[in-house]
Amino acid sequence: MSAPPPNPLAVSLGDPAGIGPEVIAKCWDARGELGLPPFVAIGDPRSVAAVWDGPIEIIDDPRQVDSAFDVGLPLIQLNAAHADTPGHPSVAGAHCSLDSLEIAVGLARSGSASAVVTGPVAKEQLYSIGFQHPGQTEFVAERCGVSAGNVAMMLAGPSLRTVPVTTHLPLAEVSRHLTSALIESRGRAALRGLQRSFGIPEPRLAISGLNPHSGEGGQLGAEDIEVIEPAIAALAADGWRVSGPHPADTMFHAAARANYDAALCMYHDQALIPIKALHFQDAVNITLGLPIVRTAPDHGTAFDIAGQDRADPRPIAAAIRMAAYCALQRADAA
Amino acid sequence: MSAPPPNPLAVSLGDPAGIGPEVIAKCWDARGELGLPPFVAIGDPRSVAAVWDGPIEIIDDPRQVDSAFDVGLPLIQLNAAHADTPGHPSVAGAHCSLDSLEIAVGLARSGSASAVVTGPVAKEQLYSIGFQHPGQTEFVAERCGVSAGNVAMMLAGPSLRTVPVTTHLPLAEVSRHLTSALIESRGRAALRGLQRSFGIPEPRLAISGLNPHSGEGGQLGAEDIEVIEPAIAALAADGWRVSGPHPADTMFHAAARANYDAALCMYHDQALIPIKALHFQDAVNITLGLPIVRTAPDHGTAFDIAGQDRADPRPIAAAIRMAAYCALQRADAA
Repeated sequence: MSAPPPNPLAVSLGDPAGIGPEVIAKCWDARGELGLPPFVAIGDPRSVAAVWDGPIEIIDDPRQVDSAFDVGLPLIQLNAAHADTPGHPSVAGAHCSLDSLEIAVGLARSGSASAVVTGPVAKEQLYSIGFQHPGQTEFVAERCGVSAGNVAMMLAGPSLRTVPVTTHLPLAEVSRHLTSALIESRGRAALRGLQRSFGIPEPRLAISGLNPHSGEGGQLGAEDIEVIEPAIAALAADGWRVSGPHPADTMFHAAARANYDAALCMYHDQALIPIKALHFQDAVNITLGLPIVRTAPDHGTAFDIAGQDRADPRPIAAAIRMAAYCALQRADAA
Repeated sequence: MSAPPPNPLAVSLGDPAGIGPEVIAKCWDARGELGLPPFVAIGDPRSVAAVWDGPIEIIDDPRQVDSAFDVGLPLIQLNAAHADTPGHPSVAGAHCSLDSLEIAVGLARSGSASAVVTGPVAKEQLYSIGFQHPGQTEFVAERCGVSAGNVAMMLAGPSLRTVPVTTHLPLAEVSRHLTSALIESRGRAALRGLQRSFGIPEPRLAISGLNPHSGEGGQLGAEDIEVIEPAIAALAADGWRVSGPHPADTMFHAAARANYDAALCMYHDQALIPIKALHFQDAVNITLGLPIVRTAPDHGTAFDIAGQDRADPRPIAAAIRMAAYCALQRADAA
């Protein structure tokens, strides 16, 4: 691994009945092999002990991570009202996952932690306890005092980074939600994120078209000309290095990827199909536009395999490594 | 290369002003290295001579290919009304490209050629001479007496094959064009094509969802449940090995691809993004549902680089190899 960031990373365990506790414990086990910097887990230690026999070092301050990390998995303890069985989520577990997220964000906001990595949560359970946000990203944004409209989700792998302009919408509704202002705003978040979190002084952003062949000059839909081109022009007018609209099918092969630092995509699958086809095990979800660094693995709680020692720690290990990398870029720039 | 098919392949040069003549001549040059079986080009020899200094062997019957192929590029001669300059298409060239396509199809229909490989044409030029079809695929279907609705386009690379249900539609119109009957029909064409042209007796077809996460149980659009699932049920009821609807973002990584022989996708970019991200240089377009084998490279005329010795012959070489492979599967089954 490269140099670690100044302080340890805060890693929330996510839902105690999901695979979060298992993969985070496995990360500590294989910390050398996976190239991981010091981190502290936050959550219910019983959820870790239920799926892992290794040593847990209960601490109450990230400053203790340095000495604890060689001895066991450093963990800031939260106790759910009762301990869940792996694979069987509960309301108590949802409360616990939300509390651990809240503490992780607080540690990063105060500077005691250099970044936040969030384990997977179960949205259905969170909604049942009154959680009002579409996902953890929006919750973190609110806790950081940033409007959810000004953050952007980036999926980043070793050879490709994508940022979707729209996310969880039915495909048929994408067109009507797409505006030049939204594309421009996500584009700015992506470009600034490449500067701040990836240390790229003059980032290059490739912007996709919406329709096949970017609409073939308007013959296959008007959005590429009427909505996307004005957003590109506005970003270019501000001096950003942007290009497009690129036909989405020919912008993700190796030679095309060499021409940009990130691809701004119009909808969920346009951004996620290429990243997961190329980097299924090591694609990391990064929230851009926050005052803190926040990453997450791009998978869910996987309740169906929780507690069976089958969960793969590589995705969350990639999220931890990338959080450390981005935190270091920010520390160097500061 | 593996065993060649019984008869040579017929390769139409496509538009004489495009890169077709150049890449086909380069294929003959590198026939050993590229593993190509005997083939005959069909078109205007002046379009080849304008971009290539190698030997051309004018023949008038595919049976002469065997002796000619070691001496020069075998070519069945058509003369355009005048010779085009590379990069500058004309009406005369459009007529010539259509005639060479017609002859290539005729040779395959009669059995003198084992398969047809079509060089790239310029649709705009073809429309100007009264061509009524959306592309070469539909023209070939008509000449074979098959309804365009019963053929399907497959994009095939070494580790992935995809078949789009809808193709050149604005993204916003995909949902309203998607019907269970259309999905079922394309699914059958894909499954039968895997049997006939790829020699897979019990092909496995993975069918994608339309919306993010296949609609998350109806929360992100109803099409996955109301339109796609009934089509899957109908195909399964007939004994086909079908699965889905699969979330499109998690069906194209290596482990997922190992579970199916082809992916049936709902729209253009859903099928083309993964195939081109993974196999940009060797993805082949195959028309399924025809009495003959027809393949094509998945690129256009590229007028902007025609005549500059910059065009890459690997895509059309992959199309020639795949045509030979499919022709052999059919010959073996017959």
